[in-house]
Amino acid sequence: MRFTSNMAQIIDGKNMANQIHSELCKELSQFVAEGNPVPHLTAIIVGEDPASQKYVEKKTEACKKIGIRSRTIVLPESTTQAELLDVIDKQNKDESVNGVLVQLPVPAHIDERTVCNAIIAAKDVDGFNEINIGRLALDMNGIVPATPLGVKTLLERTNIPTFGRNAVVVGRSKNVGLPLSILLHSDGSHATKGLDATVTICHRYTPAKELAKYCRQADIIVVAVGKPGLITKDMVKPGACVIDVGITRVQDEAGKYKLVGDVDFDEVRQVAGHITPVPGGVGPMTVAMLMQNTILAAKKQAADRAN
Amino acid sequence: MRFTSNMAQIIDGKNMANQIHSELCKELSQFVAEGNPVPHLTAIIVGEDPASQKYVEKKTEACKKIGIRSRTIVLPESTTQAELLDVIDKQNKDESVNGVLVQLPVPAHIDERTVCNAIIAAKDVDGFNEINIGRLALDMNGIVPATPLGVKTLLERTNIPTFGRNAVVVGRSKNVGLPLSILLHSDGSHATKGLDATVTICHRYTPAKELAKYCRQADIIVVAVGKPGLITKDMVKPGACVIDVGITRVQDEAGKYKLVGDVDFDEVRQVAGHITPVPGGVGPMTVAMLMQNTILAAKKQAADRAN
Repeated sequence: MRFTSNMAQIIDGKNMANQIHSELCKELSQFVAEGNPVPHLTAIIVGEDPASQKYVEKKTEACKKIGIRSRTIVLPESTTQAELLDVIDKQNKDESVNGVLVQLPVPAHIDERTVCNAIIAAKDVDGFNEINIGRLALDMNGIVPATPLGVKTLLERTNIPTFGRNAVVVGRSKNVGLPLSILLHSDGSHATKGLDATVTICHRYTPAKELAKYCRQADIIVVAVGKPGLITKDMVKPGACVIDVGITRVQDEAGKYKLVGDVDFDEVRQVAGHITPVPGGVGPMTVAMLMQNTILAAKKQAADRAN
Repeated sequence: MRFTSNMAQIIDGKNMANQIHSELCKELSQFVAEGNPVPHLTAIIVGEDPASQKYVEKKTEACKKIGIRSRTIVLPESTTQAELLDVIDKQNKDESVNGVLVQLPVPAHIDERTVCNAIIAAKDVDGFNEINIGRLALDMNGIVPATPLGVKTLLERTNIPTFGRNAVVVGRSKNVGLPLSILLHSDGSHATKGLDATVTICHRYTPAKELAKYCRQADIIVVAVGKPGLITKDMVKPGACVIDVGITRVQDEAGKYKLVGDVDFDEVRQVAGHITPVPGGVGPMTVAMLMQNTILAAKKQAADRAN
């Protein structure tokens, strides 16, 4: 395969995440050298979903690499909501625990929102508690969900200009699309250091023609839908930055499973200026940001205890 | 002056607000007839800003009309933050009080955010507490800020289609632009009954040319900036709905003061399908929504006490 000079630069999220891991490793060493306890993350899984187990494994591996202590609590599928809330409450009260996450989805008999709000804001390293979402919306210091924070960091470290530029977010999920649209449009001089872009939020009810039009006007396209092939070459302005948060498991011609994003990568890379691959783009950044959030939480808790 | 048939329909916010007031009056009578105490709103003003006094007067007048008990606490400019928080705390704890608001702005020596968060979410009828903003962002039941809720209600009661339509919000303030962009883009089947529009958020760093382009693509334009004449005829698609939240006091040729919005009303009404005037558009709807929020808060508190 020959690469021509106008092919998009592929943003290597895995490499960037590794770089961040080593920076966090140093930051953590210094924090511990100052006499603070080693940060501790508790991950809770309810049930035996193999994807959830895999995700949590990736997170605990990253903890190990950086030097964060981690513990995984695996609860049976039959766990009641009250039992899960009790487990969360113990983690909330345990001063040796700095971060708590419940791997989503939870079984259908448990209300996800109640669970997300049960983790106290200070230990909510996923940033899904209503208080952390509220703080994000208000540009206040809090904990920002890892995937949108990963996209923001990826744009910043790739030096993609965002100030006064046009951005499109495709997908209005509460874990990715909505918080990302806030980070993209909000004020760079406030605590969350927003990106000051003009932002359009598209979603399932945006007509295809309108979606294509908004995308073509965009300097930055972030897509988080879960529909392979949604973003095609004709929808992308030459030189635009295309960030693919989608992740879908599909079977190729040979019957082998592989992970693909929402962007027609082979086509779009011919017009885009920058593009993230799937896998190896946003995914590793999500894990890195979770690590960053855990250290941030530990530091804030230490500062609060000192005051 | 002659009106041609292609002149925009003027949305009479004052009339709509009066209609809502009488609906709320009936709702309140029934609530009280069921044995519940008369809902009670406390408004707090710090300092002697005449505009703040005027706004609070309008709110207490509306309370009187509907049958809500209200009390205004006026504190001197020199009030410390601790003293104000103490006053708020007493209102939070007073079971006879259902809604509490602090008229903004507060004097510079008091932190506005701390004050907004000090009012407990259940009594926060302005919807500015971080928990209420978080719930709005998550499409959960909570209290929605009055001005964006007023704009939503105004669109709904005028039967402006929003599903899958293009909307532009000009201005990213936390009290209007941001919550409104959430109400406009979010899911109509969730608790907050979002409007399912494709939404573009423009702000001070959106280049003028881009602002004009996004506005021209829009079926609905909501502008909340405070810059008279910002939205001109050439920026509006024929038939679009233009909602003007801006309110600025200017002097006319004769030296007389008048209130104007952000839209060049006389020009834009020649192309728009619907338009709100200033004054008499969004303003009265804000007051009506505050009344609605107060009754909602009282009803929720009664239901919580019954459980």
